[in-house]
Amino acid sequence: MEEQRARRATAGDYMSRSIGVIGLGAMGNGVAHSLLRAGFKVHACDLRPEVLQRFADAGGIPCASPAELGGQCEVVVILVVNAAQTDAVLFGEQGAAGTLRPGALVIASATVPPAFAQALGRRLGERGILLLDAPVSGGAARAASGEMTMMTSGPAEAYALAEDVLAAMSGKVYRLGDAHGAGSKVKIINQLLAGVHIAAAAEAMALGLREGVDAEALYEVITNSAGNSWMFENRVPHILAGDYTPLSAVDIFVKDLGLVLDTARASKFPLPLSAAAHQMFMMASSAGHGGEDDSAVIKVFPGIELPAKKAD
Amino acid sequence: MEEQRARRATAGDYMSRSIGVIGLGAMGNGVAHSLLRAGFKVHACDLRPEVLQRFADAGGIPCASPAELGGQCEVVVILVVNAAQTDAVLFGEQGAAGTLRPGALVIASATVPPAFAQALGRRLGERGILLLDAPVSGGAARAASGEMTMMTSGPAEAYALAEDVLAAMSGKVYRLGDAHGAGSKVKIINQLLAGVHIAAAAEAMALGLREGVDAEALYEVITNSAGNSWMFENRVPHILAGDYTPLSAVDIFVKDLGLVLDTARASKFPLPLSAAAHQMFMMASSAGHGGEDDSAVIKVFPGIELPAKKAD
Repeated sequence: MEEQRARRATAGDYMSRSIGVIGLGAMGNGVAHSLLRAGFKVHACDLRPEVLQRFADAGGIPCASPAELGGQCEVVVILVVNAAQTDAVLFGEQGAAGTLRPGALVIASATVPPAFAQALGRRLGERGILLLDAPVSGGAARAASGEMTMMTSGPAEAYALAEDVLAAMSGKVYRLGDAHGAGSKVKIINQLLAGVHIAAAAEAMALGLREGVDAEALYEVITNSAGNSWMFENRVPHILAGDYTPLSAVDIFVKDLGLVLDTARASKFPLPLSAAAHQMFMMASSAGHGGEDDSAVIKVFPGIELPAKKAD
Repeated sequence: MEEQRARRATAGDYMSRSIGVIGLGAMGNGVAHSLLRAGFKVHACDLRPEVLQRFADAGGIPCASPAELGGQCEVVVILVVNAAQTDAVLFGEQGAAGTLRPGALVIASATVPPAFAQALGRRLGERGILLLDAPVSGGAARAASGEMTMMTSGPAEAYALAEDVLAAMSGKVYRLGDAHGAGSKVKIINQLLAGVHIAAAAEAMALGLREGVDAEALYEVITNSAGNSWMFENRVPHILAGDYTPLSAVDIFVKDLGLVLDTARASKFPLPLSAAAHQMFMMASSAGHGGEDDSAVIKVFPGIELPAKKAD
């Protein structure tokens, strides 16, 4: 406790107290509330007025734009969907980069190409703004409880400013070195595995259904055998329940496996499984399932009858 | 304890006491010793005289052939490599099927095509011999400690004879119904996932090495994230150690993913990821790595430098 106070004082009390969150989606909303619980003054902006109002009701400070937010915060966490949105909220017309003071810190947590994260570090550095390349993993529930996993890289000065913010957001912060891009590379590789494993879970369950195996028994055996994966265990229950309400959508993996393949393609590196899995997610999206839960990738398999949705 | 004695008596004391094990490989040897520990009289045969001699030294009863073994046992566990060997030890010139008495039980534990297991049940049934379709999972260590996972199917009479034998071999026995083939189908689907996950682990680590990510840090992050799989966690340490001493070899997955694809092909069912992973294992085998640990599938990726073997 004493140690934590000492650390805060070193970083400057006014600096570590006023934190901005750009993007109040499933992840950003959880992070913003975790920061409020930790005692920070939390400023936020989001394109949806009703979301922003709910956050104000919970004790947050709503901002009309990233520019307004940037003028009031020394640390800004960006939790938007992709690189294009990250670029827009920083360098767009009402972007935060124009109002953030030199010495401020940006924690960029969208899943982005590693090369984008590297360039972002240079572009912010030209304005004297620090960057932590800091993608997150763990889903909305862990964002809400302040227990996300973070895959981070950046200079020591950035970590010095970020320490208590990261502690409030995250159950586990991996520090992957000084170089921007290292955090995003590890996140990309996690998405490679996550995407392939979801598609493999779908392929395995599809073969089971084709062969007339009892689907519930198959799930029980596999989750206790060497064929198990985090994604098999987590996603197959959606298939068994016939419930494709999106927690994370098919189109997220169209995007993320696309990023994986773009990253490898830049150095002409082959990824046969990622490419096959990406095609499966695109088949599912083209067939109209892009907004459904990513486990709906099983719908690309013809000639099987999926478990029906149970009555509520 | 009382209950167990009662059960044994029901099955007939002479029947549950003399058990045969055909094949003293990594799995069969462990099973034979587990059965010895449980107090059974264990008869065994194997093509390698020195292996058989070691088993005799440990208290087992060596047999010169499956036929000799069949004449002395009421329950026979077959732990050979594949369907062809299973067929040979039962129906070959010195096969056990000719000497097993009506009412005897065969526990067939090799990974075989589900259709082979179904046909085996019919062929043994014509001689009045019972079959349990009972593939195993868990590796040599768990075979040795009597804690394998078994994926079983067969008629109730077969289970009645098998109960105490299965209890001695296995930590977890899944009962998947009366129909032969159901156990083998679930095992095949487990191998689908295991093979795809090993190839995906290799692909992910290969991209990490290509991108200059610290391989040890990558392993640490992934094993604590949604990208994890049982196989990633178990096999990537071999890559990090540069040690491809085979625990299970590349050629096992050339065979097992081949079985997976044959099973699906019989009903013209597509398996895009299994097909891509099978090609990767065949590329590794053709390049001369078929006898190495299955994690050596990472050697199909060009343009990366793998961790070197650490000095002993």
